[in-house]
Amino acid sequence: MRDWVLGLTVVTGTGEVLELNGDLFKNNTGYDLRGLVCGSEGTLAIITAATLKLTDPLPPAIRVVCGLADSSGIGDLLAAVRGRYPGVGLFEYFSGLCLDVVVRHTGARPPFPTRYPGYVIFEVAGDAGAPNDALIDWLGELTAAGRIVDAVVGRSIDQGRELLGLRESISATLSKYYTLHKNDIAVPVQRMGSFLSEIETFVAQAYPTAHCALFGHVADGNIHVNILKPDGVSTPEFTARAHAVDADLFALVRAARGTISAEHGVGLLKRDFLHFTRSQAEIEILRGIKRIFDPHGILNPGKIFAAEAKVTPAR
Amino acid sequence: MRDWVLGLTVVTGTGEVLELNGDLFKNNTGYDLRGLVCGSEGTLAIITAATLKLTDPLPPAIRVVCGLADSSGIGDLLAAVRGRYPGVGLFEYFSGLCLDVVVRHTGARPPFPTRYPGYVIFEVAGDAGAPNDALIDWLGELTAAGRIVDAVVGRSIDQGRELLGLRESISATLSKYYTLHKNDIAVPVQRMGSFLSEIETFVAQAYPTAHCALFGHVADGNIHVNILKPDGVSTPEFTARAHAVDADLFALVRAARGTISAEHGVGLLKRDFLHFTRSQAEIEILRGIKRIFDPHGILNPGKIFAAEAKVTPAR
Repeated sequence: MRDWVLGLTVVTGTGEVLELNGDLFKNNTGYDLRGLVCGSEGTLAIITAATLKLTDPLPPAIRVVCGLADSSGIGDLLAAVRGRYPGVGLFEYFSGLCLDVVVRHTGARPPFPTRYPGYVIFEVAGDAGAPNDALIDWLGELTAAGRIVDAVVGRSIDQGRELLGLRESISATLSKYYTLHKNDIAVPVQRMGSFLSEIETFVAQAYPTAHCALFGHVADGNIHVNILKPDGVSTPEFTARAHAVDADLFALVRAARGTISAEHGVGLLKRDFLHFTRSQAEIEILRGIKRIFDPHGILNPGKIFAAEAKVTPAR
Repeated sequence: MRDWVLGLTVVTGTGEVLELNGDLFKNNTGYDLRGLVCGSEGTLAIITAATLKLTDPLPPAIRVVCGLADSSGIGDLLAAVRGRYPGVGLFEYFSGLCLDVVVRHTGARPPFPTRYPGYVIFEVAGDAGAPNDALIDWLGELTAAGRIVDAVVGRSIDQGRELLGLRESISATLSKYYTLHKNDIAVPVQRMGSFLSEIETFVAQAYPTAHCALFGHVADGNIHVNILKPDGVSTPEFTARAHAVDADLFALVRAARGTISAEHGVGLLKRDFLHFTRSQAEIEILRGIKRIFDPHGILNPGKIFAAEAKVTPAR
């Protein structure tokens, strides 16, 4: 997101109003405080105005959904699609359970008569309504080579929208119908190939009685792990279990040089795990920066890291 | 540039080695120290390794050079080109003198038989070798409407390269053959229309005996102003004059909510002018951040802002 923020107006913890970067595309005069405030979760300053950089409308796209036997070939599949369609944007994975949930609760039509363990949706530039024989032939080759099990191509704008809807409905449907424990992890893109199946294996072992709905932005190395609370387990019991398992999950993330939070932030829920992604030396610097912007500790105290101990002067 | 930096390894002024962001595309765990170090001119930490995000090769492009009667319509011309060719990337202005210099010293072929006060080069996606009647018709309409005076389209890869060479040779040719006073300013893109001609007028008045070679990245709001030292004026005399004029130039930049340095940085040359772009409250925060990374003031001291006064303990 911070790539799209040109400028911010903010108020610091001492009441200073700062105009950070105005509406400038380029500005190399000292440190980038605008970027520092982006993602600071309200702990450095309160944002009162923002200038965003808008993009040109995306060119028309053809959407393709593939059924997969498992997630282990996901990195190679991304490389293959990018090799053939440079500039490919959307490339998303979702597990079989995600599609089950969407089909069950939204009445969406499944893309294939058969249910597969995982799916990918990607987008290539082009006119969905025009003949796309080369694309279809190539998907046939991928199928014949066992890299995908089946594929469906949106042949109109409506069909493309319906296919994307399968992916886009996952998050809202899960939140509406289930009690969830959510994680939002990321690893370097080149590690996604092995990491996605590693996480699937880990989760299956750590939560033998719970279902896991897993989806992610493969091209960003980002995976959303959603554990569904099983029936018959109380929410506090489930949360305690999830908290304990998180430490093991984050150890895997750290070993893969990943992050415990790709998009969601740290807040309170991930605060005790910050050291899995940031070193102690970094955390000291973060705290120092916090003190500069907010010397009295009044801005969202206790978020990201524990509030500073207040020294009460002796009377 | 910082948009393309995924991760940095840095050493702070206390000798701490920090791995900032690894190779992650997304990471929302605390403040973005990687972005903070980018553009910090060696004052916060020494960068020992960087991971950069590479892009797919750009699609083939058609290059167009237009001759202009003056620079006042540049903002409208950019809007017209973008309206017709969404996603247009390159869109650069250069003054007549820039082309004169390139033609004189590199032997490049001028794009038109007539010399114009200013030029624009832009790029639209497409195959330069294929017929481009629609583009050529549209350029004819712009000419008939008086928005440009003439246009030439690169009809092959070689011709396109030759046209781009006119723009790309400017900086090196100026530096090789002339003593220059350089500025690198930017304003919000929407102000470029009036600002470019405002700067041209200002420079002509401020330097009545010097030539000015002006070129810029119009789509970024960024203008490079190069004053050529006149013959018969000593370099110290020229530099003193330029320094005095810079304060007036930067007042114009500030009035347009711009920056005194879009790309080059602050260093020593622009240090005394930092307050034209950053407020006093911001500069205090920058200094505070410097103290956190480099409490002993050993990293590139005196760059961006004056070094902290050292307190020598009494013996």
